[in-house]
Formats: sequence, structure tokens, C-alpha cells
Amino acid sequence: MTKLKISPFAPSAFSSLLPIPGFTMATAETGMKYKNRADLWVFHGCPGTQIAGVFTKNLCPGHPVVWSKKALNVQTGGPRLLIVNSGVANVFGGKKGKDAITKIALSCAKEFGVESNSVIFASTGIIGEALDASKIISHLPDINKNLSDAGWSKAAEAIMTTDTYPKCSSATATINGVPVRINGIAKGSGMIAPDMATMLSFVATDANLSEGVLQNLLNLIVQDTFNSITVDSDTSTSDTLLLMASCTAQHNKINDPSDARLQSFIEALRSVMMDLALQVVKDGEGISKFIKISIKGAVSNSSAKVIGLSVANSPLVKTAISGEDANWGRVVMAVGKSGEPAERDKLSIFMGPYAIAEGGSISKDYDEKKVSLYMQNSEIDLVVDLGLGTGEARLYTCDLTHDYISINTDYRS
Amino acid sequence: MTKLKISPFAPSAFSSLLPIPGFTMATAETGMKYKNRADLWVFHGCPGTQIAGVFTKNLCPGHPVVWSKKALNVQTGGPRLLIVNSGVANVFGGKKGKDAITKIALSCAKEFGVESNSVIFASTGIIGEALDASKIISHLPDINKNLSDAGWSKAAEAIMTTDTYPKCSSATATINGVPVRINGIAKGSGMIAPDMATMLSFVATDANLSEGVLQNLLNLIVQDTFNSITVDSDTSTSDTLLLMASCTAQHNKINDPSDARLQSFIEALRSVMMDLALQVVKDGEGISKFIKISIKGAVSNSSAKVIGLSVANSPLVKTAISGEDANWGRVVMAVGKSGEPAERDKLSIFMGPYAIAEGGSISKDYDEKKVSLYMQNSEIDLVVDLGLGTGEARLYTCDLTHDYISINTDYRS
Repeated sequence: MTKLKISPFAPSAFSSLLPIPGFTMATAETGMKYKNRADLWVFHGCPGTQIAGVFTKNLCPGHPVVWSKKALNVQTGGPRLLIVNSGVANVFGGKKGKDAITKIALSCAKEFGVESNSVIFASTGIIGEALDASKIISHLPDINKNLSDAGWSKAAEAIMTTDTYPKCSSATATINGVPVRINGIAKGSGMIAPDMATMLSFVATDANLSEGVLQNLLNLIVQDTFNSITVDSDTSTSDTLLLMASCTAQHNKINDPSDARLQSFIEALRSVMMDLALQVVKDGEGISKFIKISIKGAVSNSSAKVIGLSVANSPLVKTAISGEDANWGRVVMAVGKSGEPAERDKLSIFMGPYAIAEGGSISKDYDEKKVSLYMQNSEIDLVVDLGLGTGEARLYTCDLTHDYISINTDYRS
Repeated sequence: MTKLKISPFAPSAFSSLLPIPGFTMATAETGMKYKNRADLWVFHGCPGTQIAGVFTKNLCPGHPVVWSKKALNVQTGGPRLLIVNSGVANVFGGKKGKDAITKIALSCAKEFGVESNSVIFASTGIIGEALDASKIISHLPDINKNLSDAGWSKAAEAIMTTDTYPKCSSATATINGVPVRINGIAKGSGMIAPDMATMLSFVATDANLSEGVLQNLLNLIVQDTFNSITVDSDTSTSDTLLLMASCTAQHNKINDPSDARLQSFIEALRSVMMDLALQVVKDGEGISKFIKISIKGAVSNSSAKVIGLSVANSPLVKTAISGEDANWGRVVMAVGKSGEPAERDKLSIFMGPYAIAEGGSISKDYDEKKVSLYMQNSEIDLVVDLGLGTGEARLYTCDLTHDYISINTDYRS
């Protein structure tokens, strides 16, 4: 296995997240794939916990996704349980993989007193291998003993695969004057493309919100956060994003997503989800540069997003930026290949503050020296103005490097 | 500039193509971008020459594409002229780039006695730079003196950019008992994706065929040849494929594409176009393995093609094969992300003769040792059977390697 270089965007220190009332957790080392590290995280929600989720749109999803979509809808007044493992994604593992989930769910029912069909699973790692149920089941009694409201950092570490740093984020808000907290963790970092854009992310809060409100906010905010990032255009079979509320906060339950009292909470949730989404991109496999792509002047917002994704996923744009080359020609190519309305002679392209191309050719003000200096930055702002309308979109991606190739040519070896 | 490694699929020797009656040509060194090599090819068709073409569907095409699409339709009883240069693609070169074409066309009119608006241009190389008209015009008199019916190999070399070998192909056929010849050349080798799938390819014959017949055959055969190859999913702004007939062969002109006398010619044309298309893939930037992807059992042929392209363009599938890893999980992912009808548990995946996965999990007969040995081959046959219908498609691509990254991170430097 390639020794992973730590992403240059790894935070220098990790803030430990405070507990969220109503939730406890524990991690364990199953040894299923990784040795000498936690690879299992169990997250327990008190009775009354509400859960919303969005999942991969890949049409060949893993067993955990298929199971968990159903489990989300199981109405239970009792506690809720989330089982997350890394190393084996339990995708395309056949009957063995499907049966493993049922076995673990039944064991969880016994051990934790939850309804088996309400247990939620999320797995990440190699696809094509089935989960070894016994390796998880044997740890459940210890996990039950060790449940604690602390442990978010360990959780973020336990769910890592090719990630080079754990990803946590937190924010506070008030609902009707009552303070609430939002904690989130996520893992990337390859096979990242929208719908969903991260492999796994879990966000929890003590706010007292109905499942309908949670699902509504999740669907809204995912669009310009997790669904606006891409590492390599490959949509995972396991992508799962959950938003869980213990509902322990002492404010009246909110059942209407348009309730004005949600404003502070929505802002906080957006900040956590955006922070986690950007952390996933900034740990994109082999990243050397973080790229923000702003599309303006498109005929519509949805057109802008298609154009943005075409630019963000273009191997030639990504390698040019990796090579610190303001190669606007490749940007024009990527805009044109998207199939969305574009007129070559109305296009403007900027790298950071510098106009690179406009009116169908290189900008009159183009200063190779300044632009070259700008391209050496580790964060690049690429702006494309179509000059056609008011549609806009913002996408986040990373460059394509030798390290991406190294990581992915020997991921299984 | 990265020193290019010669593709492992480069032919050990180049067959020199025989002349085609009615066509002459010459090459020159303009020094516009490359030094000490020919970078300009002029191809001259006798009066009566018929020309058909297909061009990139990129919505931001280069000036040569915009011009040549119109020039194709100019009816001229006189000679036809094709100007091809490498090094500067004349895309997004603004007014200067557009004017350069007009200037060169007017000079060609004087020098060769052709109608200026019927001159056809094809350029390949850096995009974002305008053609320097004077560097081409100054060579026209010498080129006119040097026109000869020989020189196909030199032509194939003159149009190369990051290609590591020149690409020629030839075949003979009979029409109504009269022998005719087909010669073709092509260049790749990055920014290769269908619609059109090669940057430049030129095919010439002495057959006596109407422009309608030529265009019809081109549209038909391009689908499973040039439009079934992909290197990196990036659709060039310059892609041009021309089919030219001098009509000098001594058989009655054929005006109906369904004329039975065309059978031998169609087969020969298909063989030349397939040969050239595969040569382009086999010189894909950084290639170490040639990959043939066969999709079967899809709900339709068009669905099969979308699935095949999703697999062929997946960075994770391409890096896995580069790493000699029969990572069927990534193939399942790529099938599922295509959005086309697929059922995980009906999928079968084969690498060469070996069943890898079927019925939603690893194949019962899977033999890691044999498959590992197979994956060391330089040509990999990947077969996906959806098990849903009778739709099928065949795609051709290459793996994604460190050399692709090296070539494209410093293409302009």
C-alpha cells in the first residue's frame, strides 16, 4: 500500500468536539482490514432520536445503503443505533454481505435493546468484499459497556480509509432562545463526486426537530455543500450523509421547516456541512492544490452547475493547475464539452484577481509574471463568466497529481 | 517539456502508403512552435474532389473548425486544398486567429488557384494561441513546387503533437470491379473523447463517390470507430475527420449510399477508420495498457454505450487496470454511476476469459492467481454483461498512469 502523504491542507490541530446531549458512542478495533487502529464506530441515540439521510444515487449501491434507506423509515419510539465500519464497504459482496447486515442487526437488538430493522449501517473501504459479521458482533458487548458522550475525534479517525486526517466540525445556534449544538464528522477521500459527494458524513444535534424538518434542511443544504464537491468524478456506491437529532433541547418541537425560529440553526448547520465538505475535498486523494470554481453569467443556475462540474472533473484542467499553468484553453474546452449554452467570444476567465481571457482571446491586461506567481498558491480561485445570463454555481475540487495515481494503482495491494 | 516515452503499442515499422491518384502533398517546417521538424502539411485534391467531414461537438470550437464546416459546403469545380498545422491549435485566439485563416486562405487562392473560401483548415496543439499567418504563407510557394503524390508518412509525422508515433492505415477495395485505394492518417493523443474522438484524421480515396455518399458513410462508420474511443473524457475543440475522394477511379460515379456495389469499399473504409482510431487510443497519453470494454445485455445499444463510456472514463477503473488489479468493485461503481438501467445482482464482469463477478458477488470460479497473471497483459478485455436485454457496445480506451500526469502538468512549459 502506498504510504500516504499528509494533505497540505490538514489542520495543524484538531479541536475536540463537546458532547451532544442524548448521544453516546464507542469505537473498536475489529482487525477486519486495518490492523492496530479503530475501524468500528457505534453511535447511540436516546429514545425519541429523529434521523434524516441522503444517499448515493449510484444505481449499484452497497448493501448498507439499501438496508439503511429502509431502516430510516422505521418509526421507533425507542433508541436508535448507527454502526459504521471502515476497510470493507460491503458492496457487491453478494448474499454473504446482505446476510452479514441482518446478523449484526439482530445482535444489536439483543445487546442494545433497539429494533433490529431500525439499525442504520454505513460501510466504507474496498468494494467487492462482504462484511465479516462475527468480527463486529464479538465487539458489541464491550462497546455497550464503553458507550460515552465523548469520543468524536476517535470516531472521525475510525471511519477513515485513504483520508490523511480526521474531519470534524461543530457549531452552536439558538432555537427560540435555547442554545443547541451541532457536531459533524466526515470521511473522503477518493471516489468523490456529487450525488452524494462524500462517502460518509454524520451530523448530530440536540435540537428538538421533527424528522421532516431534518430531511428538508438536509435536502436543501446538501446541494451547495456536499453536492458541490468533486475529487475524481467517480460516484461512490456507499455515500451516506445522516442528520440526527436527539431532541433533548428544552424548546418546543419544531415541525415546520419554514419556521422562522430555525434561522440560526440553519446557518449553523450550513457552516458545519460546508466545513466538512471542504475538508473532504482538501483531503482529496493526492491533492496539492484546492480549487474553487465559480461559474457566473450562465443561462441558469443548473446550467452553471453542469458547466462547473465539467471544468472541475476535466483531467486536463486539473493537471494544468497541478502544473501551475493558467491554461485557459483547457478551461474553454471544458466549458464547451459540457453541452450547456456557451459562446466562445462572450467567455471571460479569471484566475484569482487576474483576467486571463476575454472576448474570445487572451486578456489585454494579461501579465504572465503575475499570473504565474498566483498559480503557485495552494488555493486557486478559477472564475468563468459566460456572459449570457444570471445563472451561477460554485464548485470545489482538487488537482490531479501523481499521488492520485499512486494511491489508486495499488489501493488493494 | 516532458520527454515522451514511446507507447508500448507503437508499431515496430511503418508501412509507407502508396499514392492515391488525384492527390498530391508536401510538408514544411514553419518553426511556429516545434523546432527542427515538419509541422505543416498541405494536401491538394484534383478538380472534382469530393469532401465530407465530421467535427467536434464541443460548443467552443476552434476557428479552423468553424471555418472548415462552412468551407466543406462551398461547391467548387476546381481543385481543393487542405492546410494542416501542428503546435498551435488556433483556438480561442480571438480576432487574430480568425483573421489568420482568412489571410492564409487568400494566399492559397493566389498560389494554388483554389477558391479561398473552399480551403479547409485543421490545426492542433496549444489552445489559447492564434496562428501566425505569415509563418505559413511564406512557405506556400515552396510547397507548391514540392507537391508530390508521395509523402503520407511525412504527413502523419507533421501533424503529431504529443503522439509518440505517426499513424497511417491503408486498404484496397473494388467498386464494380475497379480497384480503388483508401489511405488515412491520424493524430491523437490527449483530449480524446467521443464526438469526435480523435483530434485530426484525414482519409483519402480515388473512388468515384458523391459527397452525399462520402458523408453518409462517414456518419455511419464514425460511430463504432472514432466515436467509440476515449483517452481522458476531454472533448477537444479541434476534432476533425475528413473523407476525401478524388473520383479518378474509372467506374461510374456512385450517388446512392445504399448502392450494393459499395460493399467492398465500406468494409475497407471501416478497416482503415478502425485501425486509425485504435492507433490513437494505443498512443493515448501515458498509456501502459490498452483496454477493450464490451458491454452486453443492456436495455439498448445506446444505453450500453453510455455505460461503456462511464467505465472507460472512470479514473478509478483506469488506475486499477494500470495497477494490474482486477478491481471489479470499481467497475460496478462505474456502471452504477452512469445512470443507465442496471441491477447489481444481474451483473456479470469478466477480465479476458475469466469470470470475476456474477450474481452480485465474486464469481465462484474466481482464481486470483490466473486473473492476476491475466492482468499483467498489455491488452485487457473487460466484459460487462448487464443481464437485462440485448443492447451492446464496444469501447476502446487506455489506462491512467503517472506519465499522463507528467505530460499534462507541463504541456505548455
